[in-house]
This record gives sequence, structure tokens and C-alpha cells, in this order.
Amino acid sequence: MTVLTTQVAIIGGGPSGLLLSQLLNSAGVETVILERSTREHVLSRIRAGILEWGTVELLREAGVGARMDGEGIPHDGCYMTDDELMVHIDFKELTGKRVMVYGQTEVTRDLYQAQDAAGTTVLHGVSDVEIHDLDQTKSYVEFTHEGARKRLECLYVAGCDGFHGVSRKTIPAEKRREFERVYPFGWLGILSETPPVNDELIYSNSRHGFALASMRNANLVRYYVQVPLSDTVEDWSDQRFWDAFSRRIPSEAAAHLVTGPSIEKSIAPLRSFVSEPLRWGNLFLVGDSAHIVPPTGAKGLNLAASDVYYLYSALIDAVKGAGTTGIDAYSTRALARIWKAMRFSWQMTTMMHRFDGEDAFAEQMRKATLAHLATSEAARRDLAENYIGLPF
Amino acid sequence: MTVLTTQVAIIGGGPSGLLLSQLLNSAGVETVILERSTREHVLSRIRAGILEWGTVELLREAGVGARMDGEGIPHDGCYMTDDELMVHIDFKELTGKRVMVYGQTEVTRDLYQAQDAAGTTVLHGVSDVEIHDLDQTKSYVEFTHEGARKRLECLYVAGCDGFHGVSRKTIPAEKRREFERVYPFGWLGILSETPPVNDELIYSNSRHGFALASMRNANLVRYYVQVPLSDTVEDWSDQRFWDAFSRRIPSEAAAHLVTGPSIEKSIAPLRSFVSEPLRWGNLFLVGDSAHIVPPTGAKGLNLAASDVYYLYSALIDAVKGAGTTGIDAYSTRALARIWKAMRFSWQMTTMMHRFDGEDAFAEQMRKATLAHLATSEAARRDLAENYIGLPF
Repeated sequence: MTVLTTQVAIIGGGPSGLLLSQLLNSAGVETVILERSTREHVLSRIRAGILEWGTVELLREAGVGARMDGEGIPHDGCYMTDDELMVHIDFKELTGKRVMVYGQTEVTRDLYQAQDAAGTTVLHGVSDVEIHDLDQTKSYVEFTHEGARKRLECLYVAGCDGFHGVSRKTIPAEKRREFERVYPFGWLGILSETPPVNDELIYSNSRHGFALASMRNANLVRYYVQVPLSDTVEDWSDQRFWDAFSRRIPSEAAAHLVTGPSIEKSIAPLRSFVSEPLRWGNLFLVGDSAHIVPPTGAKGLNLAASDVYYLYSALIDAVKGAGTTGIDAYSTRALARIWKAMRFSWQMTTMMHRFDGEDAFAEQMRKATLAHLATSEAARRDLAENYIGLPF
Repeated sequence: MTVLTTQVAIIGGGPSGLLLSQLLNSAGVETVILERSTREHVLSRIRAGILEWGTVELLREAGVGARMDGEGIPHDGCYMTDDELMVHIDFKELTGKRVMVYGQTEVTRDLYQAQDAAGTTVLHGVSDVEIHDLDQTKSYVEFTHEGARKRLECLYVAGCDGFHGVSRKTIPAEKRREFERVYPFGWLGILSETPPVNDELIYSNSRHGFALASMRNANLVRYYVQVPLSDTVEDWSDQRFWDAFSRRIPSEAAAHLVTGPSIEKSIAPLRSFVSEPLRWGNLFLVGDSAHIVPPTGAKGLNLAASDVYYLYSALIDAVKGAGTTGIDAYSTRALARIWKAMRFSWQMTTMMHRFDGEDAFAEQMRKATLAHLATSEAARRDLAENYIGLPF
């Protein structure tokens, strides 16, 4: 059996695994990344597009900020709307900070390029991963790669393999506590090469359901509408999408809508999920492997980034013999921030979506929340501070 | 038939009817108050005890602030707790304002005294009230009093007769839009002549359910615990109450608990309710006749006071021929503030109570809300601004 050796084995070559690897490598800690898919597949996934400023700074610290700083679009605010009421959330004025519009796909591309330059081993097409000896001084990961069973010996394992990955499930079920909320609707999202309807994002609550006007660049929009979970992409022609979308955003905004063919169209369910703890012996869960947020509030990638932030310096200390205080505190520190982001994402989701079978009182509570936001600077500041990202 | 004449007929002799009458009388507008119960009964009802500063100022403006200013206890903050976590909400620091602890019963007593001095006709023991000709220039109210059917002719009618009163029901059902949320628990409240467990109020979320430590004065406490709706007062001995209460507040607070016999004990259901519109021809609904809040957040009496604030100057203008702009705008203006207070009361209620059959995620959202409050000044400010009262 081929045996590889490294200091930190990273399961998953998405943005959280790559970023962790990049930060560890920069400090002289060796890593090997095991990824189930091809690089092409990872880079074809359309994901989030909003980076908190803390994530921006962490990417810069990792040495992958150059293209982001050149091509990303800083946003100083967003709109929260209720029918025709448009509430401007001025991040800059309320918090002194902003967010960066830069697609997760681009972040991942930059990280791969940096990891290539660093000479890090990234194995793709890896399957049947098993993680062993997590309670020993040294652990190892066994996996199938290019038709052969291989072993990766390591000091620590970082589980960056997402919700469906093996890392979380390696922790015995009776030692995990899982929390979940499945929302009774999905988001139908399209990509279209058209100019954005507005300079800033618009989160729209309307009598017809939620819509989000987002973007990737000056000629590429990412728009969403809330749909029943029973709907399929085939139910939604481009025409039907544009009709629904324009009806759900304020007419002041809809007046600037430019429609065009969709170049991607997909439906994603909405879920809140947390598994505790994040550490099991030498294994550390990061990002989606331990927690999922609904996309309202754009916290998914950013929460993975804050996990990486807490973990990377802790692992450097542990690997270099500078103590285990950091890795011992990782789960508690990261979870404290995770639960606040879960709360924000849950609140944004319940505040902005129509729920089937809801009563008129529930609808009024959403409208009153938006009306309060319109007149309360404290409420807008609270939203803005959460949106631009609570401190690491 | 005995016929009385006045300018504004006020149905209901609770605090909202009395305060409206007092303010109208001070401006030379005549009123007659019709009350179903005896004065003794009205003054025996134990109700809210927290006055927003806007309410305090309105009571002073009405000339009934003297005893309140002498005996009321200004509070500069309160505590929101989750198990052992105590979050201090410093009203004074966050908003520059405070609230006043002064029982609704005392407010009502002061208002009766002032109305007596003003020589206002207050008829008690009135029944079978009917309101007529609301679409005419002059309206009238027919009612039974001291065994005789009587008629009160007037220009306007103020419906201050509470949730079960006749005023709201006088508006045709098909012209009303009603919103309701009934919560699946009640509050068991006791009065006890003991010193308060804390200088400020404590709103406690705990694994055992909600508790509130409130007070009336330095030797009279008003404490509550959340109970199932199926419970009766007979199920709750004083001992059982004290055991439950002390288990639900942080041990740091419970250490100061002094127990004693209860001198009053009752269970109240929790409900959110709004009926729109507040105006129907010459009829104007005020306070509980149009809207009910759950007591979490202490908004009931204060919302009646802001209705009175919007209505009294509008009625003065209308009666004195200075135009109907005020009464025309009353429903819209009052409802805008009512819905925000409904939202706050609903949020405080859902944030602080255990719901039967809730999942672990819901409990985590409550805990995360309190954890966020502990570290976010913006969240505390938003809560404080709502608690001390949004501007009229």
C-alpha cells in the first residue's frame, strides 16, 4: 500500500480546505488535500458571492487577495424591501465596514492557483475515505485513488468535506448533538449575462414570496425567487422566472430590470444545521461538514472562513509544539460565532419568506419588522453588523 | 327616556377612557364616561406596572403626575437572562431614557380622582350599550343604567371598553380585518409583600420555562412563571410557585430571593390581537378594544396611552371646528405604532418562552438571541428603544 505522510490531512478541496491548507503552508506546516471530485467539477459549482470583510482580510493574509482586490466589487450597503417599501442598509455608515462581491468559484480558483504554486499535494478523484486512530498521537486516513488503496499518515485531520462528507460521520453518532431546521421552500436561482437591476443587492419580501437580486459583476447577475420544494427547474421557463422576479421586487427597482437568457438555473433547498462538537480527538470539522445555513444573509462561505481562522493558528501551534490551548478551545470558540450566524440566517429567512399555511398575523410580523427597520437606526445597525460579519 | 348630551361619549372607565376624558376636559371638551363595572371593581384589577416615559409625560400633561412622580420608581434598566447568563439592558445609557414602575391600578386611581375634581359624569354599572348613527353628524349611545334605558347624544364616540367590549363589534364584521396569535401557555402571576429579588426587572429564559421578576414597590413584588394553559391556580401552591420561580432565575439572583405568602394569584393567557381599522364614522377605538399584546415587554397600557395621545388632540380639533385632519389620520397613525409594538411583544414572547413540542433548534435560537444580546450593543439598543417606547 502506498503510504504518504503529512502533518495535517485535509479532507475536501473546496474553499475551506484550500484556504486552511494555504494558511498552514505559509507557516511551514505540511498538508495533503484529498478531494472526491475533479478540479473542473469543484470549479464549476455556482455558490455564494458575498465576502465579509473579515473573509477578505483572511484571503489577503493567505496571499490570495490580488485578483479579488482587482476584480471584486466592494458593496457599501444593500436594500431590504417589503412590497414598495425599500429600506437601505448602509453598511459603511452604520459599521464603517463593507462587503466584497466576489464569487466563491473565483475564490476557489485563486486558492488552487496558490496551492499549485506552493507545491501542495492535492489528490482528486479520491473515494472511500476512512479516518483512523483519532485518539492516538498519530492518525491516518485510508482512501482509494487511481484504483489503488492508499494511506495518508498525519498528526491532525481537518474535515472540510461538506455536509455529505465522511468527516462528521466519523464522530460516533452518540457523541454528536445535531440541530436541524428544514425550511418548507427552496431558492430557484439563475445566472444571466445582463447588467444588475441595482448597484446593491436587494432582498425582497413581497406578497408573492421572496426574491433576491444579487450579482457577480457588471454584466452577470445572480437572481433568486422563493419556490415550493415540489417545483423543478423544468417548471420554470426563463419567461416565468422573469415575470415572477419582476413582480416580487419594488416597481422602482423593476423599472431598471434587463432580462436575458439564463446561463444556469437550479433549485436549492434551505436548511439550518449544526453538529456539535467540532473536534473529535485529532479531527477538526470546518465549514459545511459541521454546519449549514440557509443562503439568506450570505453566511455559508464566511462561516467556513471564520472556522479556518480559529483553526489554522491553533494547528500551527499544535504542530510546532507551541501548545494545545488553541486546538482545545477551537470547538467552543468557533461554535459561539456559528450559533450567532445561525441565528442571523434563520431570522433573515423567517423575516423575508412566505410560509405556506401561515396566518395573516405572521405576514404582519414580517411587514412590521421591515417597517421597524425603516425607522430604527439601531435595528439597521444590528442587521448591518451581522451582515458585514460579527468579529472573529 | 332620559337623554344626556355631551361632545365625546367614552365607552369604558378604565385607564384609557379616563385618560382620554381627562385630556379632553382639560381642553374644554365635554365627555361622559359609561363603565360596565363598579369603580371598586375597576380599581381591584391587578394589571401592568411599567410606564414608558412617553406615558409618564402624557400623564403629567393630563395633570395626574403628582403621586406617580412621588411614589413611582424610575428604572434605568432591566435584565434579560438565559439560564446563568445575565444580560443587562441599560436603558439610560442606551437611550438616555428610563421607564417608571407605577401600577396601572394606581394610574387609574389618580385618574378617577382627577375626573371627580373635574366634575365629569362617570356612570357605573352600565349595561346593554348600543352605539348608533355613527355615519351621521351626531351619534348617540343607548344603555341601561340604574334599571332605566338612557340615551347619550354626542358628536364622537371613543371605544375604550376593552377586548370584550361592544365598541369594536359595532363595526360590521365584514369591515374589520382581525389578526390574532394565541400562545400555547399562560402566565401565573403572584403578588407578595416581600422585597424584590433585584432592583431591576429580570426577564428569564430557562430550560424550565420563562419567569419574570417584577415589582410594585420596595415591599410588594409581582412575579410570574410560564405555565401550561391547562393549569389552574389550584394546581399552584405558594410553595410550588416559589420552587419553580427560583429554579428559573439565575442562581446569582435567586440567592437574594425572599419568599412569603401570596396575596393574589392568577393565570392569564397570552394573546396578540389587532383589529383594523380603528375608526368607523364617528367611532374611534382605543387600547384593548382594538388590540391586545402579550405582557412580555409591558406594552399593553402604554399602547393605549399612545392611542390616546394620537386621538385627544385630533378630537379637540374636530369638536372645536379646527378641522378633521387629525381624526382622519388617527387610524393610520396609531396602527403604525401599534404594529411595531405588536412585533416587539411577539418577539420578546417567542424569544423568552419554551414552546411545547419545540425542537432543539428552536431552543438554540433563543439561546443564541440572548448570547447575541450579550455581545451586541446594537441589539441591546434596539431592545432598549422598544422597551422604553418608540416615539409617539
